[in-house]
Amino acid sequence: MAKAIVLVMDGVGDLPDAKGYTPLSAALKPNMDRLAEEGSTGLFSSIGRGIVPGSDTSHLNILGYEYERYYPGRGPLEALGAKFPLKDGDIAFRANLATVDNGKIWDRRAGRITTEEARVFAKYVQKMPLGNGVEAIFQPTVEHRGILVLRGKNLSPSITPTDPHASSVPLPKSLPLDPKDKAAKRTAESLNKFTKMCMQKLEKARENRERKRPVNAIIARGAGTYSQIEPMFQRFGVRGACIAGGALYRGVAAYVGMDIIEVKGATGTFETDLKAKGKAALQALWSHDFVFVHVKATDSFSHDGKFDEKKNFIAKVDKELMPTLLRGNCHIIITGDHSSPVKRRAHSGDPAPLLIWGPDVRRDQSRKFDEFACGEGSLGNVRGTELFHIMLNLIEKQKMCGT
Amino acid sequence: MAKAIVLVMDGVGDLPDAKGYTPLSAALKPNMDRLAEEGSTGLFSSIGRGIVPGSDTSHLNILGYEYERYYPGRGPLEALGAKFPLKDGDIAFRANLATVDNGKIWDRRAGRITTEEARVFAKYVQKMPLGNGVEAIFQPTVEHRGILVLRGKNLSPSITPTDPHASSVPLPKSLPLDPKDKAAKRTAESLNKFTKMCMQKLEKARENRERKRPVNAIIARGAGTYSQIEPMFQRFGVRGACIAGGALYRGVAAYVGMDIIEVKGATGTFETDLKAKGKAALQALWSHDFVFVHVKATDSFSHDGKFDEKKNFIAKVDKELMPTLLRGNCHIIITGDHSSPVKRRAHSGDPAPLLIWGPDVRRDQSRKFDEFACGEGSLGNVRGTELFHIMLNLIEKQKMCGT
Repeated sequence: MAKAIVLVMDGVGDLPDAKGYTPLSAALKPNMDRLAEEGSTGLFSSIGRGIVPGSDTSHLNILGYEYERYYPGRGPLEALGAKFPLKDGDIAFRANLATVDNGKIWDRRAGRITTEEARVFAKYVQKMPLGNGVEAIFQPTVEHRGILVLRGKNLSPSITPTDPHASSVPLPKSLPLDPKDKAAKRTAESLNKFTKMCMQKLEKARENRERKRPVNAIIARGAGTYSQIEPMFQRFGVRGACIAGGALYRGVAAYVGMDIIEVKGATGTFETDLKAKGKAALQALWSHDFVFVHVKATDSFSHDGKFDEKKNFIAKVDKELMPTLLRGNCHIIITGDHSSPVKRRAHSGDPAPLLIWGPDVRRDQSRKFDEFACGEGSLGNVRGTELFHIMLNLIEKQKMCGT
Repeated sequence: MAKAIVLVMDGVGDLPDAKGYTPLSAALKPNMDRLAEEGSTGLFSSIGRGIVPGSDTSHLNILGYEYERYYPGRGPLEALGAKFPLKDGDIAFRANLATVDNGKIWDRRAGRITTEEARVFAKYVQKMPLGNGVEAIFQPTVEHRGILVLRGKNLSPSITPTDPHASSVPLPKSLPLDPKDKAAKRTAESLNKFTKMCMQKLEKARENRERKRPVNAIIARGAGTYSQIEPMFQRFGVRGACIAGGALYRGVAAYVGMDIIEVKGATGTFETDLKAKGKAALQALWSHDFVFVHVKATDSFSHDGKFDEKKNFIAKVDKELMPTLLRGNCHIIITGDHSSPVKRRAHSGDPAPLLIWGPDVRRDQSRKFDEFACGEGSLGNVRGTELFHIMLNLIEKQKMCGT
């Protein structure tokens, strides 16, 4: 039976440097180049032409769920990725343990606190009643990161964040986006009460006595309401598995009803165990129609402006992950969720290269997997959820439209 | 004046076999290849990338009517194709004369009854009052096929079919999709009453005495409401003619207000008289802005898994139809409504090859008309109703959008 592996190299697309090279076009990657030669190539814009995709919206589209309709905000997706047991109506935030000094944000990461340290501080604030039937639940995840959930009736995510995504600025109060929106007002007040109570409790923590940058606040952003959506098997008739180190990607996959495969050593970093991920993908193929495999370091190196490191990581994926995936004897799709040009140190709206390979895929003239060769490919410019539908057709799981 | 012929070879697109050939790429077709060399090529997805088109939805889009808005269900389109005089509000079904045994469907085609035999049985059931002001009208078409229409006030097509599209299963009762929908409930009850009355009447038919598989039931599917839509000349300012053997394609064309040209020998099969179709197209060009010519056997051979027969039919179209069409001295568009890979024996979501030829069409680098060469063409990936608008522009009938 036809199956597929969808490999997303986060932010793999790039813009040419002074010599005309991108990290992908400069990388040694004989496996990917062979697949490009034997299959079809094109360019992929996960949201739309020229649009700069976020990590959450792009992955919703890649997995077939139109972000315009299904995007719940970052909070719920991060929470699901951290296996937080969300309930319908919960307002979830991505939260940071932070250092505040004199009402100003000194360090949004509290001196890059470790995961173990964070757990100790979290105990002071993990569950707090905020009055009005609203409860706050905080769950630390990795390092300074965590999930904050406000649970209660009639809450709304239409509020401003308390994490300004900048340092040396005053710690903001949350406000309703519309002052007449009672639910939002109530939610903002609850969040502000949470902020205040946290500061009171953390201030007394004896673990702060020896820290240069005390962990004395929790700041929150990405508010979103969680509600269950029609899962993938019901909507599209396929079972998908997700192999990803990063919590957000796992969260998106869990949200759309995919199975999250645990892989020891899958860290979402350069050191991620690519061989272990490949083996897990092969195994997951047995019980699923397709397996989504995500590697993150391509994007991380772009954010740090590291051309050679990005190039070397792509070569590593080709050498350590691709041979295993090829043993799956199935269709393979390789692309990025977006481009992340090294010189911009940020996501961009340039399309990502795309290749589709398999036993009966139409072969086109392109012979390499990079931004330039794929620009000549027969797939042309693929947009939004189209790629997911192309994948469904590839594995013969697409339902007929009409009769 | 600029005119166009749009030739649709049903399901012409395919996937490569083990040697890398498709029926189209292997076929001898010097005329089409010359047009590809002299004109522009590309790929066409009649619904969307990766989506598997039905025959009805794809042709609505090809003829400029967005299926999302205009699709009335298969029943009304089949009825129009059979020249059934539909009235606004009619619920139309595609119906089969069938053999039922002990409450189970024994043969959905009543032993592949002939058209002449079917007419005899139809007389027993052609018009029946069902009570509540609802009337059933049955009209046989070709062999076991026919049209069933329920006519009355407050009827709804939101019901389940009585044709389960399978044999050896119980003859199903029709049910409303939503049990609270009164119009649907009334329609389902009417359909069930029709089924029962048919069986009573056909049971007594003396023509059944000698049949191994008695014609003793009529089963129905594809329920849809008919209502007149803005016809093509009014909406787009063009007069279109349709030359097709299959009832469904004629129905779609009639629905959008095109003229249906009768061609003796146009059967929708391999034996269809291609020369007669070509001549009819030339004649229709005099009085129309464009002529839509449909050949069906490419798709039929795909459904039967016949690579060589599909290839040979394409060669036959090139040899017997193309020379006549070329005498029309007009623009020519050739494409498929979808791909139907021989090895899948079904429609697929792979794009169909597309060529556009004419005196002032931009010439591109592709030199053959097949899935591979067209993948390199300058038209890129054309989607949905875009092709119809490209045709309108070609014949200088496109209205300006804005000023």
